[in-house]
Amino acid sequence: MAQRHRSIEQLMECLGRLPGIGQKTAERLAYHLLRVPADEALALARAIGDARAAVRACSRCFSLDATDPCAVCADATRDGSLLLVIEDPREVARFEETGYRGRYHVLGGRISEFDGTAPEDLTTSALLARVRAERPREICLATNPDLEGEGTAQWLAEQLQPLGVQVTRLARGLPAGSTITQVSKSILADAIEGRRPLRPGR
Amino acid sequence: MAQRHRSIEQLMECLGRLPGIGQKTAERLAYHLLRVPADEALALARAIGDARAAVRACSRCFSLDATDPCAVCADATRDGSLLLVIEDPREVARFEETGYRGRYHVLGGRISEFDGTAPEDLTTSALLARVRAERPREICLATNPDLEGEGTAQWLAEQLQPLGVQVTRLARGLPAGSTITQVSKSILADAIEGRRPLRPGR
Repeated sequence: MAQRHRSIEQLMECLGRLPGIGQKTAERLAYHLLRVPADEALALARAIGDARAAVRACSRCFSLDATDPCAVCADATRDGSLLLVIEDPREVARFEETGYRGRYHVLGGRISEFDGTAPEDLTTSALLARVRAERPREICLATNPDLEGEGTAQWLAEQLQPLGVQVTRLARGLPAGSTITQVSKSILADAIEGRRPLRPGR
Repeated sequence: MAQRHRSIEQLMECLGRLPGIGQKTAERLAYHLLRVPADEALALARAIGDARAAVRACSRCFSLDATDPCAVCADATRDGSLLLVIEDPREVARFEETGYRGRYHVLGGRISEFDGTAPEDLTTSALLARVRAERPREICLATNPDLEGEGTAQWLAEQLQPLGVQVTRLARGLPAGSTITQVSKSILADAIEGRRPLRPGR
């Protein structure tokens, strides 16, 4: 029987290690990379190498940047009194788009019994040490509004309590642009629970 | 605003060019490749380069292999009287698994008005030239059993007719291991249409 060439198998195996890429998809992607002009395929190979060479985790906030400390940590005009604790380095770009001017701390995940992720697998000790050293006024626990995100926030809030810092959580409620008839029961419950006074003229 | 590093943007762009990989998935994959041990990320980069360097399209059948002609074309024990015409080089491995011992011709796709793929975008001229030169006894048009696959087979059958070669198509019917109550109407219609005499003792 004619075998598939070893280098194709190897490529499929590497692609199959990517999250959410099953065996069939890995095969499809491998053959795509063999079919397109060599330039296009090699551009991806180069981009992986370049990004790995250029980017590192900031030793202070653990976000990814070309410099350590990262651009946000090195920027003295950022508001050091507010620290936003996030799960994933990708989220930095999202918050930056909103015009947020405080600082970040990237946990590198969330506490999850299901995934076997414990607090010590995250940057939680570094966060506590940083809070002791930098004494921010407020720490906003911006983990995701789901079961494990809430659990992680609860755990962190307990650890932070003795440090006497104000701990907040991102608002939950109706997503901007949504339609009340179409949002889920939990979203609506959050929106009622978190209702706020409306001041005339604002 | 802090920007995402250019090398991350570049990696996301390259990943986003892969088929079926949208912008969000490209972002997820890029950050995965930045988070895993460097060895693992660079193994993928290397695998792309290695596969592109090692593998080429066979100039006779257009399947992918390290040699040209490919292992199947170079194997004199293969049955040259039967030519299986397939859409995609990936399918070679599937047919090889069945113990098929004839030869292949890879079209490199299917005729599709939707995708804008015309016969001249495929290896159709090479197929006709090959049939004239090699004079196989039978050509089995193994394009997929769907609208465009059927259309491609029909178009090829018309081109092959003047060459006086026997043209066949893969059988359609019940997939082995299926349950009649659960297969679709079209599968069942194919199975009735293609019913075959059962000889006792076979």
